Amino acid sequence: MSTVTELAEKLIAAPSVTPATGLVFDVMEAMLEPLGFEVHRFVRGEEPDGPVENLFAIRRGPEGSKHFAFAGHLDVVPPGEGWTSAPFAPEHRGDLLYGRGAVDMKGSIAAMVAAMADVPEDAGTVSFIITGDEEGPAVYGTRALIDFMIERGDTPDLCLVGEPTSVNRLGDMMKIGRRGSVNIWLEVNGTQGHVAYPHLADNPLPKLVAIMAELDALVLDEGTDWFQPSNLEITDMEVGNPAHNVIPAKATARISIRFNDTHSGESLSRHIMEIAEKHGGVARPIISGEPFLTPPGEFSQIIADAVKAETGVDPEPSTTGGTSDARFLRSVCPVIEFGLCNATMHKRDEAVAVADLETLARIYARVTRAALSA
Amino acid sequence: MSTVTELAEKLIAAPSVTPATGLVFDVMEAMLEPLGFEVHRFVRGEEPDGPVENLFAIRRGPEGSKHFAFAGHLDVVPPGEGWTSAPFAPEHRGDLLYGRGAVDMKGSIAAMVAAMADVPEDAGTVSFIITGDEEGPAVYGTRALIDFMIERGDTPDLCLVGEPTSVNRLGDMMKIGRRGSVNIWLEVNGTQGHVAYPHLADNPLPKLVAIMAELDALVLDEGTDWFQPSNLEITDMEVGNPAHNVIPAKATARISIRFNDTHSGESLSRHIMEIAEKHGGVARPIISGEPFLTPPGEFSQIIADAVKAETGVDPEPSTTGGTSDARFLRSVCPVIEFGLCNATMHKRDEAVAVADLETLARIYARVTRAALSA
Ligand SMILES: [Zn+2]
Ligand SMILES: [Zn+2]
Repeated sequence: MSTVTELAEKLIAAPSVTPATGLVFDVMEAMLEPLGFEVHRFVRGEEPDGPVENLFAIRRGPEGSKHFAFAGHLDVVPPGEGWTSAPFAPEHRGDLLYGRGAVDMKGSIAAMVAAMADVPEDAGTVSFIITGDEEGPAVYGTRALIDFMIERGDTPDLCLVGEPTSVNRLGDMMKIGRRGSVNIWLEVNGTQGHVAYPHLADNPLPKLVAIMAELDALVLDEGTDWFQPSNLEITDMEVGNPAHNVIPAKATARISIRFNDTHSGESLSRHIMEIAEKHGGVARPIISGEPFLTPPGEFSQIIADAVKAETGVDPEPSTTGGTSDARFLRSVCPVIEFGLCNATMHKRDEAVAVADLETLARIYARVTRAALSA
Repeated sequence: MSTVTELAEKLIAAPSVTPATGLVFDVMEAMLEPLGFEVHRFVRGEEPDGPVENLFAIRRGPEGSKHFAFAGHLDVVPPGEGWTSAPFAPEHRGDLLYGRGAVDMKGSIAAMVAAMADVPEDAGTVSFIITGDEEGPAVYGTRALIDFMIERGDTPDLCLVGEPTSVNRLGDMMKIGRRGSVNIWLEVNGTQGHVAYPHLADNPLPKLVAIMAELDALVLDEGTDWFQPSNLEITDMEVGNPAHNVIPAKATARISIRFNDTHSGESLSRHIMEIAEKHGGVARPIISGEPFLTPPGEFSQIIADAVKAETGVDPEPSTTGGTSDARFLRSVCPVIEFGLCNATMHKRDEAVAVADLETLARIYARVTRAALSA
C-alpha cells in the first residue's frame, strides 16, 4: 500500500492543465482498482469547452447501506512562470511537497484514496466523483458525472468536496455553502455623431453611466446567518472610440454579482434587466451558479468531530469565497467542502505540508466511517 | 485672366490630402505672382504632424494703408470611396463643379484670387495666409504663418477666413465666433482582485462612474447672446478587462467639451480636474482651441452689406459648429469666417455651384474694398 504522499506525488507527476484527459486518470484508476473500486471513465465535449475526462468509481457496501461520496477534480490551473522546481515534477524541500495541484486538489484526492485503507468494505458504499474540468468552463465535468450517477441510480447520500478550504492551518475552515454567481453584460445603443453637433447624435454613455451609478448604489441584501451580503462589482466598461470628436454609437459594461441564498440568479437578473431598460439599455445575464447551503447539522458535525479529533481545531463553517462544483452536487444530496490549506493554490510554488497530507487522510477516514454509520 | 472656375479647377486638380506640400502650392504661387503678390513659401515640421507647407503672399498698398487678409487652407480631407468621378479630376455635371476641396476650400481661395482683379492695387495692402494643414493636427500650419507675419511686421488689420459657412444657400450664414474645444482623459487607478474577495481589491470603476455621473450632470453655463450653452460629451470609457471574475486595476474615460467665451480651456480643465480628484481620479486635458468672438460691428456689417448686395440675403451671424483656424488668427486681429455652402464638405462627390463661385468672387471683392477703406 502506497503512502498518501506517494499517491500525491504520482498524481502531481501526471500533468493535467485544465481540461484534463488521459494520463492523470490512468494513474487514478490504477490507485482505485486494487482498493476494490469499480472504475468508470468517460470523455465528454468538444473544443472549446472540452474534451473533458470524468471518472466515477464506486465500492459497494452491503445491500441498503449508506452511500458516501468524495468529489474532486484532477485538472489544475496552468502553472505559469517562475517556479523554483518544475511544476509537474513533485519535489520535497523541508517539510513541504511542491507541485501544481499539491493542495488544489491532487493532495486531497490522494488523502481520500489513502483513507480507504481505514474504511472497512462492509461499512457502506463509497464513491469518487472526479472530473477533469473544474478549473475551466466546467460544462462537461461534474454536471456530466451527476447525469451519469442519476442514470445508474448511484447517487450518494452525502458528498464531501475536497477543495482546499483551510486557511491558516489544516482544519480551521469548512465550506457549508457558496454564494451564487452571475455575470451580466450591459449595452446601450445610441446614434453616432460629432461632438460639435450633439443634437444630431444620441450619446449612449450618459445612459450607461446612469445605469452603472444605479447598480453601484444597489444594496442587494444585508446578509444572512450564514452568508455575507451579496456583492455587485463592475468589472468592465468598453466603448473603443479612438476619435476625440466623435460621439460613439454604442457603450457596453459588465458586472459580476456574488449572491447569497436570498436571491436566485434568475431573480437578480430580472432586477438588473429592469434597471438597464429604465435607462434605455439592455442586460444579458449568464448565471454561473446558484448559491448552495448545507445548514450546520449532522453532516457538518461529523466533519467538525473528525477535524477536532485529529487536529484539536474547531473548523469554522463558512460560505465565503468563489464557486466550486458543490454548486452542481447540491442538487443530488447535502454537500460540504473540506480540504487542505489554500495559501498557495493557483500560485507558483504550490506546496502542501507532508504532515497535513497524513492528517487529512486520517480525517477523511473518520468522516467516511461516521458518514456511513450516520 | 483666368475665371474663378478655371482657378478652382486648377487647385482641385492638384491632389493635396492633409498635410499638403508642393504641387498645389506651385499652382497657387503661379496664380498670385502675376497679380503683383510677393509670395513666401516655407515648409515646417516633421512626421507625424508634418511636413506642412505654408504660403504667405502680400500685395502692398500705399504706405500706411490698411491691411486686409484672406486666410485659408489648401489641404483637403481624404476623398474616401465611392465618388462618381475621380476626386482630383475636376468635372462639371449640370451646374456643379465636382472635386475634393470644391467647397472646403479651394473654391473660396479661387474666388478670393479672382476678386483681386476688382481690387485696385492702391486701395491698400492685401495678403493671403494659406496653410497646408488645417484639416490635420494644425500644429505647423496657421500658427507658423502667424509667427512668420509677426516676425516680418506684416500682421493684418482684419482677416476673413474662407471656410464654407453657408448652409442652405450662399450668404445665409457667417461665423463671427467659434466655441473652444478641450478633450480630457480621465483615469482612476485601483487594485486588481477577484470578485469573490472584493475587500482585498479596490475597484476603480465605481469611482469612475461617480466622476462621469457628476460630469454628465454639470451645467457649464446657459449660453450667451452669441453662443449656445457649452456642452460636455462623454466620448469613451475603457477598461479592457476580459476576465469575468476579475476586478480591474485601472479604468479610463474621455470627454470632449465645446465651450463658449464664458470659459477658458484652462478654467474648465481645472474644474474637471477637481471633480476627478474628489473621487480619487486624475484628469489630463488637451486644449484644442480657445473660443473666439468678433462681436457684431463694423467688420460683420461690411460682410453683410457685400452679401446683401450680391445675393439679397442677410447672413446670420453664428458661432455654431466645430473649430477652425480662426481660433489662432483671433490673436492677431478681428476675424470672421464666410464662404461657400458646406452641404458636401468632407463628403464624397463634394461639389460647388459654378454660379456660387462667381458670386463669391464678387462678394470677396466688395468685402476687400470696403475693409481697406474702413
Ligand atoms: Zn479546486
Ligand atoms: Zn476647411
